[in-house]
This record gives sequence, C-alpha cells and structure tokens, in this order.
Amino acid sequence: MHLSGSNFIAGQRSAQGQTLVYSINAHTGERLPGAFYQATLGEVDAAVTAASAAFALYRNLPATRRAEFLEAIADELDSLGDDFVTLTCQETALPSARILGERGRTSGQMRLFARVLRRGDFYGARIDQALPARTPLPRPDLRQYRIGVGPVAVFGASNFPLAFSTAGGDTAAALAAGCPVVFKAHSGHMATAERVAEALIRAAERTGMPAGVFNMIFGSGVGEALVKHPGIQAVGFTGSLHGGRALCDMAAARPQPIPVFAEMSSINPVLVLPQALANRGSQMARELTASVVQGCGQFCTNPGLVLGIRSAAFSAFIEQLSGNMAEQAAQTMLNPGTLNSYKKGLRALQAHPGIKHLGGAAQHGTQAQPQLFEADVSLLLTQDELLQEEVFGPCTVVVQVADEAELLRAVDALHGQLTATLLADSDDLSAFGHLFAALEVKVGRVLLNGYPTGVEVSDAMVHGGPYPATSDARGTSVGTLAIDRFLRPVCYQNVPDALLPAALQNANPLGIQRLIDGIPSTAALS
Amino acid sequence: MHLSGSNFIAGQRSAQGQTLVYSINAHTGERLPGAFYQATLGEVDAAVTAASAAFALYRNLPATRRAEFLEAIADELDSLGDDFVTLTCQETALPSARILGERGRTSGQMRLFARVLRRGDFYGARIDQALPARTPLPRPDLRQYRIGVGPVAVFGASNFPLAFSTAGGDTAAALAAGCPVVFKAHSGHMATAERVAEALIRAAERTGMPAGVFNMIFGSGVGEALVKHPGIQAVGFTGSLHGGRALCDMAAARPQPIPVFAEMSSINPVLVLPQALANRGSQMARELTASVVQGCGQFCTNPGLVLGIRSAAFSAFIEQLSGNMAEQAAQTMLNPGTLNSYKKGLRALQAHPGIKHLGGAAQHGTQAQPQLFEADVSLLLTQDELLQEEVFGPCTVVVQVADEAELLRAVDALHGQLTATLLADSDDLSAFGHLFAALEVKVGRVLLNGYPTGVEVSDAMVHGGPYPATSDARGTSVGTLAIDRFLRPVCYQNVPDALLPAALQNANPLGIQRLIDGIPSTAALS
Repeated sequence: MHLSGSNFIAGQRSAQGQTLVYSINAHTGERLPGAFYQATLGEVDAAVTAASAAFALYRNLPATRRAEFLEAIADELDSLGDDFVTLTCQETALPSARILGERGRTSGQMRLFARVLRRGDFYGARIDQALPARTPLPRPDLRQYRIGVGPVAVFGASNFPLAFSTAGGDTAAALAAGCPVVFKAHSGHMATAERVAEALIRAAERTGMPAGVFNMIFGSGVGEALVKHPGIQAVGFTGSLHGGRALCDMAAARPQPIPVFAEMSSINPVLVLPQALANRGSQMARELTASVVQGCGQFCTNPGLVLGIRSAAFSAFIEQLSGNMAEQAAQTMLNPGTLNSYKKGLRALQAHPGIKHLGGAAQHGTQAQPQLFEADVSLLLTQDELLQEEVFGPCTVVVQVADEAELLRAVDALHGQLTATLLADSDDLSAFGHLFAALEVKVGRVLLNGYPTGVEVSDAMVHGGPYPATSDARGTSVGTLAIDRFLRPVCYQNVPDALLPAALQNANPLGIQRLIDGIPSTAALS
Repeated sequence: MHLSGSNFIAGQRSAQGQTLVYSINAHTGERLPGAFYQATLGEVDAAVTAASAAFALYRNLPATRRAEFLEAIADELDSLGDDFVTLTCQETALPSARILGERGRTSGQMRLFARVLRRGDFYGARIDQALPARTPLPRPDLRQYRIGVGPVAVFGASNFPLAFSTAGGDTAAALAAGCPVVFKAHSGHMATAERVAEALIRAAERTGMPAGVFNMIFGSGVGEALVKHPGIQAVGFTGSLHGGRALCDMAAARPQPIPVFAEMSSINPVLVLPQALANRGSQMARELTASVVQGCGQFCTNPGLVLGIRSAAFSAFIEQLSGNMAEQAAQTMLNPGTLNSYKKGLRALQAHPGIKHLGGAAQHGTQAQPQLFEADVSLLLTQDELLQEEVFGPCTVVVQVADEAELLRAVDALHGQLTATLLADSDDLSAFGHLFAALEVKVGRVLLNGYPTGVEVSDAMVHGGPYPATSDARGTSVGTLAIDRFLRPVCYQNVPDALLPAALQNANPLGIQRLIDGIPSTAALS
C-alpha cells in the first residue's frame, strides 16, 4: 500500500519541496511509514492556478454532469476497503465501526448534493418578464440565477477524517456549487487524505472533469499562502477558534477580502428542566454521559455545559452524573496535540476558583480521562471567558441557577452556539416554552429531548450559529443549505433566450422551479 | 417647517451633544437653516441598545405585521409634500422630477418587501420529517427557517437621498428581515433624513411597532462607534471604496466579526460590437452620452469604460461620442466634496501618460463638465489602478482593442463590477456570444442593448458583484433578494408542533411554500 506523499495538483502528483512531514500512529505516537512533501509556495500557486483554470470549464458544465462527478466520488469512497479503514484508525485512534459509519456518511453526503444539483433549487432562478407597456418606463426582461464564487480553499477537521475532511461537507458543497477546490490536508491524517484524494481524482477522471477540479496540498504553514492567494474566492474551515479566526483575519486583510466559513467553538448548552428531571433524571444522566464521552468527546456538538435549576432533584442528578462520568473509561484522542489541549483545558478549569471538580479520574497517561466540573452561575453571568471556551474532549461543566429568571439570564449571557438542547417533559414545555425564542437567537439548532452529538445530513439541518460557533451565522457546514455559501447571484437583462443559461431559458429545459413574476412555477414561458 | 436636528432614539428625540453639523445648499454652497446635533458616544450606545431591545419584540411579530409597517412607511413617504421635495432639491441639487420619481421608487420598494413578507419565501422553510424506522439510526424531525440576524447599521448614499438612504433599500431589507435599524444620516442631506425619519417613526407608531425599531444618528465620525458596537450584527453601506473598505476592516477586527454589505466602486464596462456599430453607431453614441451625463453621472452604474475593436467605424463612433459629450451642459453636483473628488479624478486621468483627453470643456467653476477620455488598452491589461477606479461624475473612458482576442483579455483583466453591457446586433451575438460567460464572472448584472443606469427594483435584479463593486458578491442591495443579507437559518429538532414558529408548523398556517423531504410543497402535514 504505497503512499507517494506528493501534492495533488491539476490531476498530477508534485513533490518539489525539501520539507517532509510525517503521519503519526495515534495509539503509539510513532511515525507511520511514508513521508509527505510539504507544498512549496510554487506548488500552492500551481494548485490555485489549476483550480482557476478548471473553474472556467467546470462551472459551465451542466449541473447533471457535476452530479455524476459527485456520485462517482461517492462510489469511489464506498469502495475504499479494509486496508483504508485500518490506516485511518491508525492515524486517528477512532474505532473501525466509526470509520465505516463515517465513510457511509461521506459518500451519502456526496449523493445528497448530487440530488440537489438535479433538483435545481440551488440555482435560485428568478424571472421578471418584460413589461414593455409599463409607464413611465418599461420594465426590461430580468433573469437571475446563481453561479459558483470561484476556487474554494478547504481546511479539513481533525475529528472527522472523512466527513469533514478531504471529500467532506465543505468539499462536497463547493464542488456542487461549481467551485474547484484546493484542499489543505490535515496533519492528523495525511495518509487517509492521500487515499481519499486518489479516490476523488479517479472519480474526476472517470467522469471527464477538468484536471484542476480538485487539488490537495500537504504541510504546515501552507494554509496562509493558500488563503492569501488572489485566485481563492472563499474558504471553508472546521477547527479551533484560534485557527479559524486567524484565517478570517487573513482573508479580511487581503486586497480583495473573501468570505471565510469557519466552524469553530461551541459548548452546546443542555438545559435540564424540572419535570423531565423528576420523571427520568437517572436516564438523562446516563444518556448525557454517553453523549459527552462518545467518540472521546471529540465532536463540535459535544455538550459542554449543563444548566439546571437548583433543587434536590437536580442535586441528585448531578451526583448521578458525577458517578456515571467517573465510571467512563479513558480513551485515546485523535493525536498528541489534542490530548495536550485537553489537559491544558482541564488545568484551566481546575485552577479557576469559581469551578470545582465533581468527577473523573485524575488526568494521567496517554489517554483522556472523562471529567465533570461544576461552575458558579456568576461566571456565566459575568461573561467569564473560561466557561464559554470549548474544552475539546470528554468533559462537561454543570451550572446551577437559582430560578427561572436566572436561567433566562444565563441563556442571554451565552455566546453563539452550534446547538442548544432542552431536556423537558410536557409540563416543562408549558412553563418554559418561551426558552425556544431565547435560545433561537444564540444557536443554529435547537433540540428537544435529544443530544446534540449526531448531526443529520439533510435539507433542514443547520450546523452553524452565531460567533464564535462559526464566523458567519448565515451559513451551515452540514446539510444541503451549505451550498449557498459558495454561490452568488447574477442577473441577465434583455438577453435573448438562446444565449441565456439553461436555468433561465423560456422552455425551462431543466424542469426546475423558478420564481416567475413573484410566483413559484415549473412552467415554461412562451 | 421646523427641523429639530436631534437624533432619533427609541422613538424619542435626543440632543445631548455639543457639536453641531449643518446642511449645505448644494447650489449655493451656503448653510441651510437649522443645525444637527452630532450624536455622542452615549447616544450611539443608546440607539443600539434601543434597537437591541426592539429586536426581541420586532423579530417575533408575524411577518404580516412587519408588512403593514413597511406599507405604512410607504404611505408616509408618498405623502411627503412639495416642501419636502424642495428641501431635498436644495440639499442635493437634484431636479424635482428626479426626487419625485425617487420618492415613488422608495415607497414602491417598501411595498415590494411587504409582498415578500406576505409571500413567505424569505423564510426558506424546510422540513425533513422524522424517519423513526430508519436503520441504523432513526432520523429526527428537522425543521429549518430563517430569522433576522439582529440590529443592522445602515449608511446611506449621497446620490440617492431617498432610495438608498434613510428609508432606502438597505433599511427596507433589514426591517423586512425583522432587524431593527440604526441609520447614520448622510451629511449631504440631513434635513431630508430628518423628514424621512419622522415619516418612519409615524409609521412605526401608527402600526404599533416597538420604539427602537428605527433609530437615526447625525454627525461625522459616529459611524465607527456604531459599527464597533457589540449590539450591531450587520452593516449596509453605499458609498466610496475607501469608506466601504474602512467599515469592512473595522467590522472584521471586532471581537465578534460581523458581515458588511458595502456597495462601492464600479466602472460598468460597455462593449460596443461591430455589427451594432455599423447598424446604429450614431444612435448608440447619443444614447451612451445620455447615460453618462444622466443625473450628472452620479450613479453607481454609470458607464465609465467603453470598449470596442479598433476599426474605421469605431473611430467614427469615438469621434461622434467626443462631439456629443462636448455638447453636454455642465451640471451641479450633489455637494462640494463630490465636485472636488470629480476634479481630482479628472486631474489624475489628465496626468496619466497613457490617457488622452478627447472631449469636454476644461473643468472650471462650481459645476461638473462632462468629459471623455481615451486610454491605451495596455493600461487595462497591466492592471493600471487608475483605469479601474471609478470617477464619480459625468465622465467616461474609451479603450480600443486590436481584435476579439484582445477584447477577451481586456474583459479578463477587469476588476469586479456591478454591471457589464453589450451593445450588439444579431450577427455580433453569433460571433461574440461567449462574451456572456466571460462577463458573468466579473459582474452582478449583464445587459444587452440597454444602459446600466436605471436599476429595476424587482425579484430578479442583482445590484451587486465581485469586489470592489461590493464587499460581498453573494449579496444584492437592490431587489427582493437583498433581504437574504440579513437572515440566518435556524433548525428545530424534534420540537412539538405547538412550540414551532408558524412557518414550520404542520398545518402550514401561513400558507407558504416549504421544501418538505426535498420537494417544494404548500401542503399541510398531518
């Protein structure tokens, strides 16, 4: 199973640099076989140039051709075999069942975007027909649709080596939008990235896509040159607040600023309400524990804050949660850097006078120990930064509030979040239903009686939210609406039918729904 | 006709500052009666605080209530009488017919957004119904709609004292989206702004809107405090590249970065093709001249660059254009600052060795003299900054290219634009039809055989485009799609029907179209 370690540029492999980077076995901390060539500045430029050249061809392909490409990628992903799964498990310490599931999620995501391309609503087609007799001035014929913004730089996540990485959601959304991609391989799973990029290239060749439709570069520090390259027109990122914000700042300071869609930091508050507590407190403590430690807590939607109203029942719940958390086994994290960040996060919580440790074995060794803390509500109300910071790993913080009024104040004090969850029964909903409106302004997704880990890939999903959950609350990085981030509208005025894009032609050859003179219609125009 | 000169905060008038600013008669350069109180930092804070308080109420009003508010604004605008028109003419030197027309455009815009609110497509409602029997995991019930981002800061334009100002397109789009507005009055028409703000407040009171739904502050330098205020969640701006970029940089550097939608600088290329030239060269020269000098050239979509293939016919066209331009009368500009910028722009063109003056009386006096220049194509191909810079006023620059290949290279060299126009007959379209694809990536709107001045307010209009035309090519500041800039998606997971927003309830009480399991439908769910 040879790994070349070369960069992927315009359908070719390129290894011009002298700097080698290595992938690490997450279980042992040892180097895996093979070396990866850090991209030179010349290679970064070549990758963006290839993407720009491909844009002119790729964006003008019929959407059905792009759909065939995405479906071919899906097929290639599905046929990555056991050796691939083993490799990814070595690089990430994630269990093979998880990688198999993630592979299906990733290919399913590609197929879902293919359906979006066939459905055609992404065009946002709108036609205002000419009104030649209107006074004082006639109205021209105006037709609007959406096109890709141009080449997109994508930075993959450490925690989803497939679904938020090389062929992950951002790549799928950009390719669907007609935007070629330059992908920066994550240092935590470069061998996986190479295998997936090979699959993407096979799919591109098989479906006759232009050579630079997908490019991938290795190395640390190459991301800056990528984001600053004038050919890049948008950025997708999943990772830390620190890293995401740095990319946003770079992008904003370019001669031509470009949008960055960074999914960054969220503590995903869970509100435990009294009736639910009375009815099924122990069950919720077990479920919540499972959600916190699932995948070693390495999820953007990991519940990092548990809010409840002070009561005997909530005290019992906390006690049970402490016990449950203390029983959880240590797990190996994605890489030594992740474990170090986790340890640092725990130390900061432990050192804070307003926070006390409730459960979990002392952190030691090479695995992450699940931990439970309790923080004083005043930290939330006074905007203590520490409490609002995501500790990436199997850890959560409980906060007790005095009453319903304080619960509302605590919600108001929250920063932007990917999710908020209510654990509530019907009596709770009568009493606390107004919490939905209070939470809605803070988050991208509000859940009732579920757990935020597990993000469905569908039309209605929002995996986004106000800063610092993401850099732009108007986007989502999961679900079909993610394509919107990479599209922009263009209007044609008085252009004859034969020269219009198919989506806007009178006959409606694509059979899509369009907004015609303010009314949705699939009809042809005469 | 008393003007208080006070700031508008939470439905009250406030004049806490010591600094007075004055409006100027654009014809005479003399101070108009009345003085305006520059907002203090405390007043800026109070205005944003009022908008934030209003947001909680206003965003939760039924969209039909917001529609009634917009319609009431429209009625109030329509009833602003002759004295108002006279005042605006004094402040801007625009003719009364233009102000009357603009008043109708502005009230029409409000009514159009009211229709959008009733139509309900702005919700972007999507429902993925639960699949409890799905394996390996059931799918939860997921429902997505869009809500306002929060209080919006709007900066009005100098050149449209009504349509792109106090109650203009950005204000209309933000209010429609459910976002209260803090409007920074333009120094060029503060008396007009006061009258329009009064009309807005009357409409707000008449329709029972929360007090801080619309606020307005006067003064120079107060914009920075406004954009940096943590309560502001988005910015709309129409004006210069310099001013717009400064706001973008401020917004990007905030602890919480926010989106800025700035409509800034465009030279709106017009491509004159050979057959059209042969068939109707003189007519096009006359029409183009009229478009360049209309409204003293003070339009974002003013054609500032004319491209044609070198030929005897194009030489004759240029000669005729020179003659036509030289015949045009001088006009008074919006204010002395605008005239100074125009003079500075002309001097820069005149001083450039690659640019020659073709027609127009020497610039002198207090009015703008229409001017025609010719630039060498090499300036375009080598990205000379001067040629790509908008000279705001009745001025345009002709560029001759050698052949079709050079025309394409010239198009490729263009920066982002609001518009591009082809003047072409049917033979041209057979030969040059591929120009549409080349232009599409550069602009927000492509026109055939029209002139870019005159921007229809409708569903299909795009008044946007790649940088530096705007700061974010994914938006438009004219037309109903403008509302999208101020909306963000939110998802509800497994929330019972009674607690869902009306747009997402099973019965579809709003009767709107929704994407249900991937299919557009107005049906109720059981």
